Amino acid sequence: MSRPPQRGGKPRGGQGGRGDRGDRGDRGERSDRGDRGKGPAPKRDLGQQVEGRQAVRALLTAGTRRVHDVWLATEGDALDDLATLAEAAGARVRRVPGDQIERRARTESPQGVVAFAAPVPMGDLDALFADPKAFLVALDGVTDPGNLGAIMRTAETAGATGIIVPTHRAVGLTPAVAKAAAGALEYLPVAFVSGVPGALDRAKRAGVWSVALDGDGDRSVFDLSVADAPLVLVLGAEGRGVSKLARQRCDVVASIPMHGRIESLNVSAAAAVALTEIARRRALEPGSG
Amino acid sequence: MSRPPQRGGKPRGGQGGRGDRGDRGDRGERSDRGDRGKGPAPKRDLGQQVEGRQAVRALLTAGTRRVHDVWLATEGDALDDLATLAEAAGARVRRVPGDQIERRARTESPQGVVAFAAPVPMGDLDALFADPKAFLVALDGVTDPGNLGAIMRTAETAGATGIIVPTHRAVGLTPAVAKAAAGALEYLPVAFVSGVPGALDRAKRAGVWSVALDGDGDRSVFDLSVADAPLVLVLGAEGRGVSKLARQRCDVVASIPMHGRIESLNVSAAAAVALTEIARRRALEPGSG
Repeated sequence: MSRPPQRGGKPRGGQGGRGDRGDRGDRGERSDRGDRGKGPAPKRDLGQQVEGRQAVRALLTAGTRRVHDVWLATEGDALDDLATLAEAAGARVRRVPGDQIERRARTESPQGVVAFAAPVPMGDLDALFADPKAFLVALDGVTDPGNLGAIMRTAETAGATGIIVPTHRAVGLTPAVAKAAAGALEYLPVAFVSGVPGALDRAKRAGVWSVALDGDGDRSVFDLSVADAPLVLVLGAEGRGVSKLARQRCDVVASIPMHGRIESLNVSAAAAVALTEIARRRALEPGSG
Repeated sequence: MSRPPQRGGKPRGGQGGRGDRGDRGDRGERSDRGDRGKGPAPKRDLGQQVEGRQAVRALLTAGTRRVHDVWLATEGDALDDLATLAEAAGARVRRVPGDQIERRARTESPQGVVAFAAPVPMGDLDALFADPKAFLVALDGVTDPGNLGAIMRTAETAGATGIIVPTHRAVGLTPAVAKAAAGALEYLPVAFVSGVPGALDRAKRAGVWSVALDGDGDRSVFDLSVADAPLVLVLGAEGRGVSKLARQRCDVVASIPMHGRIESLNVSAAAAVALTEIARRRALEPGSG
């Protein structure tokens, strides 16, 4: 579970233009609120603004990136603990009225805490594929920040070694993603790629199996022969599923058995089922890697 | 998997006062928007307003309750199909400008569709417990509408026979719940109870096993000896977990193995893992019931 060595940081805003968020703020992102800090708005959201107690706590304790400022609501009762952590991390702590936190926040419920940090270091795709215990997730068109964050959180708890996110037509690492990820942004390497099909070609060359999760897969996710091998789980967009181009490159298309009248699970629920099942299989079969 | 016979309907607003939503609209509920229909606002949200294409489609095709009106955006390209379904269901169809849909909607992204229907019929707790194939979910303090809806959706796909929701300190069946449930509101019986601990007492008397899902459970959810017996899975509030009173009444406290540094899954992700695993076990062991 060691980190790839290249998680060494990337200059702020160095990823080019601000990504198309592709969502309508459905999961709590306030699309009408830009970054209104002292400096210019980041060109691309790479986790620079983190809100919510759990996510900020992980940011401060993980120590993987520099935290510049932490704003805490003066009214907050349970926030002294975060103030102590923030000072220990070398951040400037500002106590401000709660309504100022609310205005500065870009999620609906910052819980009295907004932190400003260096961007998350970028994961390197080839290093992620070279890990003999590679257990990766690739998102093919997941645009909802709540889903992206929830999938990152689940992937981290399942022991995944990284997540692959397309640069275009996907959400960046916005405050809503960071909050839903509940700290996973600090621990799970994120590799941005120009396209998932190309990344899957590279996976194949590196000997990493590609498993698409799709409603009409021909194999149950509970009957996955490659669960304990190096693999990348490919998750598709809500509704449309995994794109044809990505699917054609997958070695296996797996599905979750459905027992009711609704045809599909939400993508983050499906991810939770598949990731936990793969983690269970890998724990059973310590020969993996 | 037969429905309890008492899903026969309940008068509109007959559940008493409007429940405490207990959330801050984190998952897309607009708390500042009341029900602004022709009639008075419902005293309690029981699924009377349904938004989003998937949820409205299920409402119209399931036929379990009367649909009064369906508003469709005039700009909608893929909405003719819903208009046809709405007319077949005996609903009044109104084509209105998209901004009128947006104003009338109580979720952030109604996708051009708002439907108005009779409340969902209430499930009867004793009938749900009497089902020899009882596979129930009880929510002990889940207040986020997105989580409630997502859990309903997952429960339905897992073949659950009903969901138990406390009347107080829990979210009602708001438009955000209906949208996240993606149609499960039409298929999954919902029983409102005054408290989960009391409901678990009744489960015990009916011979139904109670399984709490909690981070510090002493048994893996993958090693559940009662998976194929009549059971109720008890899910706790985000953060606090299952309440002490409810937990004391449970026969088993199960957990999902964690392999990373984040300590817990989101409640709807945890629900997806547990419900799918129980469904898998029940499908393997057809002796259940």
